Amino acid sequence: MTLTADLAATTALDLGPARALSCRECGHRTALAAEFACPHCFGPLEVAYEFTGITRDSIEAGPKSIWRYRHLLPVPGDVQSHPNTEPGLTRLIEADRLAAALGVRKLWVKDDTGNPTHSFKDRVVAVALAAARELGFTVLCCPSTGNLANAVAAAAARAGWDSVVLIPSSLEKAKILTTAVYGGTLLAVDGTYDDVNRLATELAADHEDWAFVNVNVRPYYAEGSKTLGYEVAEQLGWRLPEQIVVPVASGSQLTKVDKGFTEFATLGLVEPTPYRVFGAQATGCSPVAKAFEDGHDVVTPVRPDTIARSLAIGNPADGPYVLDVVRRTGGAIGHVSDEEVVEGIRLLARTEGVFAETAGGVTVATAKKLLEAGALDPDAETVLLITGDGLKTLDAVTDRVGPTATVPSTSKAVREALAQHG
Amino acid sequence: MTLTADLAATTALDLGPARALSCRECGHRTALAAEFACPHCFGPLEVAYEFTGITRDSIEAGPKSIWRYRHLLPVPGDVQSHPNTEPGLTRLIEADRLAAALGVRKLWVKDDTGNPTHSFKDRVVAVALAAARELGFTVLCCPSTGNLANAVAAAAARAGWDSVVLIPSSLEKAKILTTAVYGGTLLAVDGTYDDVNRLATELAADHEDWAFVNVNVRPYYAEGSKTLGYEVAEQLGWRLPEQIVVPVASGSQLTKVDKGFTEFATLGLVEPTPYRVFGAQATGCSPVAKAFEDGHDVVTPVRPDTIARSLAIGNPADGPYVLDVVRRTGGAIGHVSDEEVVEGIRLLARTEGVFAETAGGVTVATAKKLLEAGALDPDAETVLLITGDGLKTLDAVTDRVGPTATVPSTSKAVREALAQHG
Ligand SMILES: Cc1ncc(COP(=O)(O)O)c(C=O)c1O
Ligand SMILES: Cc1ncc(COP(=O)(O)O)c(C=O)c1O
Ligand SMILES: [Zn+2]
Ligand SMILES: [Zn+2]
Repeated sequence: MTLTADLAATTALDLGPARALSCRECGHRTALAAEFACPHCFGPLEVAYEFTGITRDSIEAGPKSIWRYRHLLPVPGDVQSHPNTEPGLTRLIEADRLAAALGVRKLWVKDDTGNPTHSFKDRVVAVALAAARELGFTVLCCPSTGNLANAVAAAAARAGWDSVVLIPSSLEKAKILTTAVYGGTLLAVDGTYDDVNRLATELAADHEDWAFVNVNVRPYYAEGSKTLGYEVAEQLGWRLPEQIVVPVASGSQLTKVDKGFTEFATLGLVEPTPYRVFGAQATGCSPVAKAFEDGHDVVTPVRPDTIARSLAIGNPADGPYVLDVVRRTGGAIGHVSDEEVVEGIRLLARTEGVFAETAGGVTVATAKKLLEAGALDPDAETVLLITGDGLKTLDAVTDRVGPTATVPSTSKAVREALAQHG
Repeated sequence: MTLTADLAATTALDLGPARALSCRECGHRTALAAEFACPHCFGPLEVAYEFTGITRDSIEAGPKSIWRYRHLLPVPGDVQSHPNTEPGLTRLIEADRLAAALGVRKLWVKDDTGNPTHSFKDRVVAVALAAARELGFTVLCCPSTGNLANAVAAAAARAGWDSVVLIPSSLEKAKILTTAVYGGTLLAVDGTYDDVNRLATELAADHEDWAFVNVNVRPYYAEGSKTLGYEVAEQLGWRLPEQIVVPVASGSQLTKVDKGFTEFATLGLVEPTPYRVFGAQATGCSPVAKAFEDGHDVVTPVRPDTIARSLAIGNPADGPYVLDVVRRTGGAIGHVSDEEVVEGIRLLARTEGVFAETAGGVTVATAKKLLEAGALDPDAETVLLITGDGLKTLDAVTDRVGPTATVPSTSKAVREALAQHG
């Protein structure tokens, strides 16, 4: 505690309740700054906090966005006085029809497609932008599999910042256009996401005013995903679910949902009831699922090959921490084929009217598989995180769905078509 | 009042505060039912209410969706106990950068792309579904220019209802796929929206359990757009803006935003400060703007030709009422070319990080034009309604935006590209 206070005192930064960066591997603490690797052991740094005066009432009285949780995030208290994208407080819907289809007693879908650029990435980027501003950066940057590119370009536009976004040139056209439209610098790189990520790390070292949200300000950025955990708990009526299924790319989101639940329990905002965290991957990029199955602690990188491009991170930075969380809580990690991904998308759309991108298909299909395998308990209350939007990955369904019929503009033709297909 | 009470008493329906249907032309009142035309004069019917006990506190204590306004809508009090899409409470953002670009003192953007299927149509459909359930319908239907198709198919899927959706076969591919994915019956008709609409009216007469949301349950459906007015007022801190710009297709939305403002003022929820309502159309489908310019009370139908397909209604049912509202409040109706629509989309994206569909481009570009013409007052606080999502009309920007550069996966290549373009 004394150390914590000292570290905060050495800086004039206002990052709210954040007090220091702490190494996930060796526990070494260092002052809040734009650092992401431990100076001792190169382990990943994480934000450490001192929380005060947080109650259900104070949260409920806050804004209808992630900023209602601002006193739990590494952002200044006046975060709302600067332009940002105001993501969060997306729908948590009771998914009775999907529950019936899957054979689950009680199921909820967290529909994060309602965010400003229609993925959960708006949450992490909004936190990264707020922290980056306080840390003195002036350009918002990222390597991305697509959703992050959209979120960074949009947030930078709104803040009036320049942006530099690096993407694999093979990305879905929709994700390219919807980044380019915001007007920042967009570089399409002929390579995989892992290549692009490596290039970004090199560039970050060159430009001291460039905040690569998921590289040099990653400790702050990653905290944004805690809000998914917070919202699920608040929207369930201030309690934790029994099971939650989370898609895994770098693995950051899964670990932060767990952190969000734990913080809420520790702060007495919810009862500390047990919960199990499950991970979902596409078979074509399933290094964490593989390590889980094999009982390994380390994750062996793979070269991704799946239609779930937003999850196509072959060398997941937070893989080992995902394994920790899943094993600690008694969960599991499953993986599904591209065919199953498309079926997952369609099942969710047909039963709940929610059109998810491939990552959502991965989550639904993996939940189905884990239920069949007996890993997910059908009698336990379960939440599925739907983190991205079907409009961005139309290719996945383009050959599978279409009009029931195309007819001439006469009532006779329409009646005949309805008689045949209705 | 006695008549109102009598009419409500004759039915066992629970449509909340709704008491009767009332003719907009002759004022004739009739019992709540699935009627849309006055039995006396064939004028359009509108819902008449008796509101009680509505306070700011009671609204603020409600759900974080349009159902917080349920006691102002023709829906049962227990509307939330049936599966529906829970739209609304979308972001109202302070648009300082767009304000600076347009030369307006104070500007707000209501970003309705955050709704479940990413347009304001989720609002009207959610109300239509709730009313249709109470009126005894079992199938949800519509003719649509696209957004409504998405919203109807999604809401029906979530409710477990069958759906029948009719669209012009020329529609944007994204809007076709994102209707088909929900699994209802989707008929693509070789004709204009006005043709499709006519066919729908014929079909509605054939099938007594089919609720065509914008035909036979239109009086209920249309009320859903009041929530846009309510939300703007609540989100401004319980007050009305001085000016608002609304895109116009059938014209329903514009008249209901006005109705929402008026009701809030009448109920004492906001001060009754003056406001002016402005309409926005694409030049290629601008029958209401034309009538406004010509000083006419009637609207002459046109054959639409514009990229703003969601606004391409050549024979707008509520055109005359739009003229009434705009003239009564001292507003105006402008129109813009397809080229200006695209510029409007890009300006909004670049300045505020909001990617709108063509209808949003129409709104932004029309606001610019009305400012230049002196019709919109640059010193008055102004709200722009952004009612649909850029992801659904990617074609509009596909040739205009793209990566800054495409480069090989080496840091040398990336550095060179950045030096050249950054
Ligand atoms: C839609 C979507 N869901 C989930 C994820 C996984 O996030 P993480 O890298 O935190 O595991 C991503 C990552 O890009 C994503 O785009
Ligand atoms: C995105 C969008 N905005 C505005 C409108 C106009 O609505 P109205 O028919 O109520 O004028 C439509 C109608 O389809 C629409 O799709
Ligand atoms: Zn360390
Ligand atoms: Zn009449």
